[in-house]
Amino acid sequence: MFEFSLEATSGSARAGSLTLPHGEVQTPCFMPVGTQGTVRALSPNDLRAAGASLVLANTYHLHVRPGEDVVGRLGGLHRFMGWDRPLLTDSGGFQVFSLEGSRTVSDDGVEFQSHVDGSRRFLTPERAMEIQWALGADVAMAFDHVVPGGADEATARDALERTLKWLERGAKRHAELSDGPTVRQTLWPILQGGAHSQLRIEGLRRILDQGEWTGLAVGGLSVGEPKAVMYEMLERLAPRLPPAVPRYLMGVGFPEDLVAAVARGVDLFDCVAPTRNGRNGAAYTADGPVNIRNAAHRDDARPLDPTCDCETCTTFSRGYLRHLFVAEELLGLRLLSLHNVRYLMRLTAEMRAAVRAGDYERWAADWRRRYTQGETT
Amino acid sequence: MFEFSLEATSGSARAGSLTLPHGEVQTPCFMPVGTQGTVRALSPNDLRAAGASLVLANTYHLHVRPGEDVVGRLGGLHRFMGWDRPLLTDSGGFQVFSLEGSRTVSDDGVEFQSHVDGSRRFLTPERAMEIQWALGADVAMAFDHVVPGGADEATARDALERTLKWLERGAKRHAELSDGPTVRQTLWPILQGGAHSQLRIEGLRRILDQGEWTGLAVGGLSVGEPKAVMYEMLERLAPRLPPAVPRYLMGVGFPEDLVAAVARGVDLFDCVAPTRNGRNGAAYTADGPVNIRNAAHRDDARPLDPTCDCETCTTFSRGYLRHLFVAEELLGLRLLSLHNVRYLMRLTAEMRAAVRAGDYERWAADWRRRYTQGETT
Repeated sequence: MFEFSLEATSGSARAGSLTLPHGEVQTPCFMPVGTQGTVRALSPNDLRAAGASLVLANTYHLHVRPGEDVVGRLGGLHRFMGWDRPLLTDSGGFQVFSLEGSRTVSDDGVEFQSHVDGSRRFLTPERAMEIQWALGADVAMAFDHVVPGGADEATARDALERTLKWLERGAKRHAELSDGPTVRQTLWPILQGGAHSQLRIEGLRRILDQGEWTGLAVGGLSVGEPKAVMYEMLERLAPRLPPAVPRYLMGVGFPEDLVAAVARGVDLFDCVAPTRNGRNGAAYTADGPVNIRNAAHRDDARPLDPTCDCETCTTFSRGYLRHLFVAEELLGLRLLSLHNVRYLMRLTAEMRAAVRAGDYERWAADWRRRYTQGETT
Repeated sequence: MFEFSLEATSGSARAGSLTLPHGEVQTPCFMPVGTQGTVRALSPNDLRAAGASLVLANTYHLHVRPGEDVVGRLGGLHRFMGWDRPLLTDSGGFQVFSLEGSRTVSDDGVEFQSHVDGSRRFLTPERAMEIQWALGADVAMAFDHVVPGGADEATARDALERTLKWLERGAKRHAELSDGPTVRQTLWPILQGGAHSQLRIEGLRRILDQGEWTGLAVGGLSVGEPKAVMYEMLERLAPRLPPAVPRYLMGVGFPEDLVAAVARGVDLFDCVAPTRNGRNGAAYTADGPVNIRNAAHRDDARPLDPTCDCETCTTFSRGYLRHLFVAEELLGLRLLSLHNVRYLMRLTAEMRAAVRAGDYERWAADWRRRYTQGETT
């Protein structure tokens, strides 16, 4: 269980498969985000139809509402959401540090205010494990201290040190919780270090010194820093990362970011972008982004993306989809979310095929040319 | 085409089947309402899964946005909505008389303001036919003058006379439009007359004198008058209605109203209630209405309605559904809309079976007992 098999490489790009209690995940893999225990506007059947194999849910959000006790009494997160494939829960670190409201950080943990009712809450590395254990996802994430993209070295160092200490405490608590007959959840560490490559390299070494991990996440990127910084971090880390461990770049992203990050050795991604953009009327297509609200689509009988096999593209015209958005109909939110998720599933499958063909760089150049030079209405 | 076959009766209750260009409709039948060319929060696949055979769309709404010319260029309403089964379009009369904004009624037609952009529009019986012909539903409705539930006899008489004159003009225009090799749309008249049974009886006689109809609608009920008035009207009309013509009670409704109206000889219904109530968290169940927001459902692992076979009831707990509503997640709106539509499809199927078994009254009494005496949280 939790084994990662690296099946092919093409340059730094990788194709593999990860075995989890609720099924196998082929990489590169994009995880749709089910913040509150539902991928916004999509049902489990929609996600299966889109080809999703791994879904992320947020520990922070489920802790404040409805509470992990409720989820537990309703049979755990899989049963609660009606999702029988693998799940990963974020630790709550990112939300605690990014949501509005006052917070107090100490070495013990973080005191913060619930965004739902303003109540005072306290999260520690141990509590984050206990909550995630109660939720019961296949993969739990360590509780981390996230700093903004432009944080100076001292701030980033401070957060890195805290995150490393919290990892030790979290891993200890997780081992206690996991001490049963069936292994049903693994824990992945999160590497912090801001935009400072020396901190990232040191952090990685110290994480690897702490134990054997079944996966490793890179956090605190895509939080406001220039894209070149993210690429540089990934390039510095790639040769130092153990090949047999899947690499998860948190909070990324857009199609072009996925293509670039896979070229730099990343295996797993999550982001709210496909569903959030979809709800705003923005769709990914082979020929680049399309804003379906544009008047140009009014009488357009063509599908959103003629290369796509999703329900949206095989059933409806651009003209109808535009009408749904102009008329503020709920179905539009769902149809574009569904398409964008399916788009990323097809994109990761294409990347995987290109890696297996040993041809990733050429494929990526072709993909980029079409995606950036297509129509962009 | 457009034939109605009356298959069984039980008292005044009827079971039949209606042949339309896009398929057969078994009665009693409830039509979900796709106001703007989409049944709110539901996809065509959802509607098929719920067992819907006939869907209503609104001429007024589609005329003001996106316009019947756009729908026509995108292949007509069936293609536009992605719905390959029968469709019926309302004439716009009800909307013109019920939506906010100024209007001027003359014998020629109604001048009104678009609720979308405030532009002045003019609907006549002929225009209503032309728009519906462009939309291309299987059944078009005659343009009618609707008065409020409490209208006095003079007002109701005036609207009835106008509606009868408009029927003649609309039928003439529809016959001109239909004068082609393939018969693809039929026209149904709407009986007005307010809460005045003598007007209703006279109106019916004069509609039947105007020609042979493939269906007949009773409009202007369920618009604010007491339920007893609606029942009285239906009871007075039932023996006078031609048995071989399907009877459509417009804008009704709630499960208890369907059960009562079928007992009084009605075959077809439409109403926004199942989807509107669903979006408000109100669900129909065998044991009566349930408000899913109620705190009692917080930890409830049971399905919404254990007798139901819909995706909502076979996949999710009440606790999860409540969470979706409390957290304001879009999926909740869809899941309760889907359930409510499926509920009415199962209810009409049950009514049909009871009629065919010659046992409608007893079935209705049993149904009413359980529905009104169940839990109502």
